Amino acid sequence: MKAEIIAVGTELLLGQIVNTNAQFLSRACADLGVSVYFQTVVGDNESRLIDAIRIAAGRADLVIFTGGLGPTQDDLTKDALAVYLGRKLHIHQPSMDKIEAFFRHRGAHMVESNRRQALMLEDSDPLPNDTGMAVGVALTNEQTHYVLLPGPPKEMKPMFERYAAAWISSKMTGVHPLYSRMLKFAGIGESLLEHELIDLVQVQSDPTIATYAKEGEVAVRLTTRSATREEAEQKLSPVETEIRQRLGQHIYANEDVTLEEEIIRLMKVRGLQLAVAESCTGGLVSDLLTAVSGSSSVFQGGIVVYTNEWKHRLLGIPMDVLEGNDAPGAISDVTARMLAENLLEQSGTDYAVAITGVAGPGESEGKPVGLVYVAVAQKGGATALKQLQLTGNREMIKLRAAKSALYQLWQLL
Amino acid sequence: MKAEIIAVGTELLLGQIVNTNAQFLSRACADLGVSVYFQTVVGDNESRLIDAIRIAAGRADLVIFTGGLGPTQDDLTKDALAVYLGRKLHIHQPSMDKIEAFFRHRGAHMVESNRRQALMLEDSDPLPNDTGMAVGVALTNEQTHYVLLPGPPKEMKPMFERYAAAWISSKMTGVHPLYSRMLKFAGIGESLLEHELIDLVQVQSDPTIATYAKEGEVAVRLTTRSATREEAEQKLSPVETEIRQRLGQHIYANEDVTLEEEIIRLMKVRGLQLAVAESCTGGLVSDLLTAVSGSSSVFQGGIVVYTNEWKHRLLGIPMDVLEGNDAPGAISDVTARMLAENLLEQSGTDYAVAITGVAGPGESEGKPVGLVYVAVAQKGGATALKQLQLTGNREMIKLRAAKSALYQLWQLL
Repeated sequence: MKAEIIAVGTELLLGQIVNTNAQFLSRACADLGVSVYFQTVVGDNESRLIDAIRIAAGRADLVIFTGGLGPTQDDLTKDALAVYLGRKLHIHQPSMDKIEAFFRHRGAHMVESNRRQALMLEDSDPLPNDTGMAVGVALTNEQTHYVLLPGPPKEMKPMFERYAAAWISSKMTGVHPLYSRMLKFAGIGESLLEHELIDLVQVQSDPTIATYAKEGEVAVRLTTRSATREEAEQKLSPVETEIRQRLGQHIYANEDVTLEEEIIRLMKVRGLQLAVAESCTGGLVSDLLTAVSGSSSVFQGGIVVYTNEWKHRLLGIPMDVLEGNDAPGAISDVTARMLAENLLEQSGTDYAVAITGVAGPGESEGKPVGLVYVAVAQKGGATALKQLQLTGNREMIKLRAAKSALYQLWQLL
Repeated sequence: MKAEIIAVGTELLLGQIVNTNAQFLSRACADLGVSVYFQTVVGDNESRLIDAIRIAAGRADLVIFTGGLGPTQDDLTKDALAVYLGRKLHIHQPSMDKIEAFFRHRGAHMVESNRRQALMLEDSDPLPNDTGMAVGVALTNEQTHYVLLPGPPKEMKPMFERYAAAWISSKMTGVHPLYSRMLKFAGIGESLLEHELIDLVQVQSDPTIATYAKEGEVAVRLTTRSATREEAEQKLSPVETEIRQRLGQHIYANEDVTLEEEIIRLMKVRGLQLAVAESCTGGLVSDLLTAVSGSSSVFQGGIVVYTNEWKHRLLGIPMDVLEGNDAPGAISDVTARMLAENLLEQSGTDYAVAITGVAGPGESEGKPVGLVYVAVAQKGGATALKQLQLTGNREMIKLRAAKSALYQLWQLL
């Protein structure tokens, strides 16, 4: 099956945002065994959008749209496809009910344009939007399949994974389904990971091996086509075993979960509790942990000790450790250790994580950007200490420091 | 001048990399006053590349390629354009000399394919590559301009900025550059924003008005073409004034800054300090504030009081307020107010922000998902309290609650 991805939005053509949707959908198509031959970006302009549809329909079996399903006058994807195919638009009542309930619930005024988000083309299948308002659409016209997804990644991704992928697969015949296994890594960068596996990646054709990096995490995905799950498992398991022999200490999961999800799961099962003290990460570790549903039975609380005064007042770090010519300073192994151990004692949790360092852009205490200390204190055990030298801008250093701290914690668990 | 950007590379179609080059070039074109109508991505396949060139030449005055100028058999951009235009390829001697010098200098063996990087089309202008080997190409054929740039951003960006931009400008006659102004909004959703401005958006053609939403923020961009900046300002200002008359209380900036950047800027100028107590947002407000460079002179610290015990122990909320049949509970205006006021007193800052609510997915204390209380306490002033009913999944409720809390703070500043 040959596919084309059409991203709709003038903000893409103005360079205001980068087309990450095309990347996500391209990769998702590859996983399904669909070959993407073209990606196109077109603005919020009906006639140019119709031109793009005509060209895509002439060279692809599957056209996937993202964007232009919202409530405003600029959201034209459904209208343009309806004109091109000569099909009518009608309201999808379950979506309309949901939109009306949303406004009733908020006590907000629903404007007429919000109805547009419930539109569907005739003879099409709805793709539910679990994280937003605009309903997606899938249909087939003269052997060409069309899938319409919203633009915001938070709506587009769940809609694709939960509904569109299965719809597309149902249109593919004579092809074995894909089975894949995701190995999630922590404490190792993508370059080094690829270097360690390069011989496997190059030789191995079934299952295929691909490495991914996103949001401070790296992963390896093993993929094979097989008639049955059992047959797939027989192909996937030996390759996973080989990878584990090389890099097992970095693998924290063999499914697509984040490191913080795995930590919360592990600690919940064992009835363990956690507290966090952050300086350079500024609340990010707490934010990551509390992003996990049900984290409240594990994560008790966090303290963002951004200034020396807060480090002193809230976690009892002596001022002569933090300041003075011969003092170790706020960015030191001494301070990291004391932050973690004092927090453990104060909070009565089983584990306490502390992070202090230089997120940049400038140095601090004469210490270089990217220098970070992580300490993990544990009830009845020795405190683990780690010094890191991270690279990247302020945002990346915060993220890498946060993930490194979680990795230190995971290793102790 | 209407432009199309063609990025060439199978790795883009597989989703292995994201097309940041298209964003860079789109923005650069907008700055030059060139309107990008389409972006296309095509793989390393000569016939599909020629098809893409044919389509682009039919709808654009300027076609900008990025990628496919390297030494390998997969690098086909120059070959494909030469075939399409019926022009010969020849070696550009200065580029060839540079490539040979490079290999001599490294003592490395130059393989025949490296010569490909010095190729040019006949009757074309070279675009020097100051940071790599492959020479760029610019030419005009039957009123259509073609610019060929390398794929690696480290080579593409300098080549565009130093050479291609000037070449393109020299082909533009009688077109004024674009000027734009971004108004950033808080405390209002995109639908309502557009509803309030719909008459302006529809009537107004110069400057144009467009609304944008991303990561919990909304923005309006005003854009006009003018001979001079002064003339542009004269067109932009009355429209901004009209929008401010309608929605001024929601406009926190007239440039592209985040709400937290604007808050840090304002508080820094006024020498004000801030502390944050978070329950349902779990550290996100602190994380957003500390994402701003230089936030440390304003943001003193934050406390993530995730459990009732932490609310009690760290911020002195009485247990009989938090728990018990007739107690207001942790999710209440009473608790929000006490968190903010106690934090203000403890920290000695000028402002203290507190957030408590239900991020979901399940209800808490019998209170519905999305119910959030925000309190902002200030030195020598009354505490501002706000009850919100937010929608979305856990992640979206955290983000919307965090941005709403920052909006409450900004209103007081």
